[in-house]
Amino acid sequence: MEKDNKLSMVVFSGDMDKVMAALIIATGAAASGMDVTMFFTFWGFKAIETEGALTGKGLFGRMLGLMNRGGVDTIGPSRFNFGGMGRWMMKKMMKDKNAASLRELRDLAIELGVKMMPCQMTMEVMEISKDNLIPATTPPVGVAAFIDEAVHSKSTLFI
Amino acid sequence: MEKDNKLSMVVFSGDMDKVMAALIIATGAAASGMDVTMFFTFWGFKAIETEGALTGKGLFGRMLGLMNRGGVDTIGPSRFNFGGMGRWMMKKMMKDKNAASLRELRDLAIELGVKMMPCQMTMEVMEISKDNLIPATTPPVGVAAFIDEAVHSKSTLFI
Amino acid sequence: MEKDNKLSMVVFSGDMDKVMAALIIATGAAASGMDVTMFFTFWGFKAIETEGALTGKGLFGRMLGLMNRGGVDTIGPSRFNFGGMGRWMMKKMMKDKNAASLRELRDLAIELGVKMMPCQMTMEVMEISKDNLIPATTPPVGVAAFIDEAVHSKSTLFI
Repeated sequence: MEKDNKLSMVVFSGDMDKVMAALIIATGAAASGMDVTMFFTFWGFKAIETEGALTGKGLFGRMLGLMNRGGVDTIGPSRFNFGGMGRWMMKKMMKDKNAASLRELRDLAIELGVKMMPCQMTMEVMEISKDNLIPATTPPVGVAAFIDEAVHSKSTLFI
Repeated sequence: MEKDNKLSMVVFSGDMDKVMAALIIATGAAASGMDVTMFFTFWGFKAIETEGALTGKGLFGRMLGLMNRGGVDTIGPSRFNFGGMGRWMMKKMMKDKNAASLRELRDLAIELGVKMMPCQMTMEVMEISKDNLIPATTPPVGVAAFIDEAVHSKSTLFI
Repeated sequence: MEKDNKLSMVVFSGDMDKVMAALIIATGAAASGMDVTMFFTFWGFKAIETEGALTGKGLFGRMLGLMNRGGVDTIGPSRFNFGGMGRWMMKKMMKDKNAASLRELRDLAIELGVKMMPCQMTMEVMEISKDNLIPATTPPVGVAAFIDEAVHSKSTLFI
């Protein structure tokens, strides 16, 4: 069974630096002609939520939403966050060096045809609705759909 | 050399959410007919330890064991733990949504024939004995045994 | 298109335990005859920096450097660090069990021909110069070079 020229990833983390690494690898692979699929699950949803969206309507959903406000501009790196300082500093450094921002990377990924699949179970458990997600995402899918992508991929990453 | 229809993972993390993601992917892949091997190393041992087990007999082993009590019901998520609050809240949300618990997922993985390999070096360094592990685990193996699994896998994840 | 007998990894994390896991897998795979490529990015640079090196000359680079002093002996595990306690304890436990240190593992990896590629973008953004890196590293490369390695690998890990 021939494998397609495909890269797939599980984006589990919501840390700015890991989401950035995921998007850099995704856009790099797509730019070099590969099919790329990103499966967003757990905290990784931050990367595909619309700005300022509060996830969830129930009590626990609201609490999680408050602690974990959606949107690619509000997330901090996995280290040295210091109440937002880390995010600001990293943004400043990236800008000084003309590195692409998270939003620019995401836009580029969409433009290059990277497939962005939201995990259905996460949406149910964390009470995230399709309205909270950027329009470029596919309909929500289960883990079986992701495994089908992984089986046909040359590499699969868990980020 | 033909690759088998196999998925392998290194379960390095002991965070509840990552262990859950690992088990969901493992059971999903096994349910769709793949061979699945999980290699548990470092903090990942929490997922295959019996309840209430204290790892280690030496001073350092006891200290690590106290900080890191075994058992799949005691581990917290990688974010928002707040002294157990995060675990309780996530468990509550999962239950409200009828999502499977970590223990149910692990039982399902065993039932579906997922191979659970404990890392021998971790057991030696952290002073974990085979008695501390659930019976479904294989005998402890070295990294070479895991690499042999990875080489014959369609995808390999580090979680 | 036949895949080479190769393993590739992205070393994103700078935590002692994750770097150790990466080096154990790398040396294990190289010892069993595989080609191994490690692509160091973001915090993973700690693993290939020379001792005591301060990364960066600008204000932000210096701040990041201070918080994140280079060198494989100074990094702590991802859990239980307690102001250096975790590192000391883990080192002590490893030594008691005759497990290899990070430095020994890195030397072994170099000896076994593991290819260590530094990420060019990280070096620019974090103001790390080639002088801060151990001589065994390749010239800095972009993400496209890593993707080319991944495409020809049997397994690719993100650590």
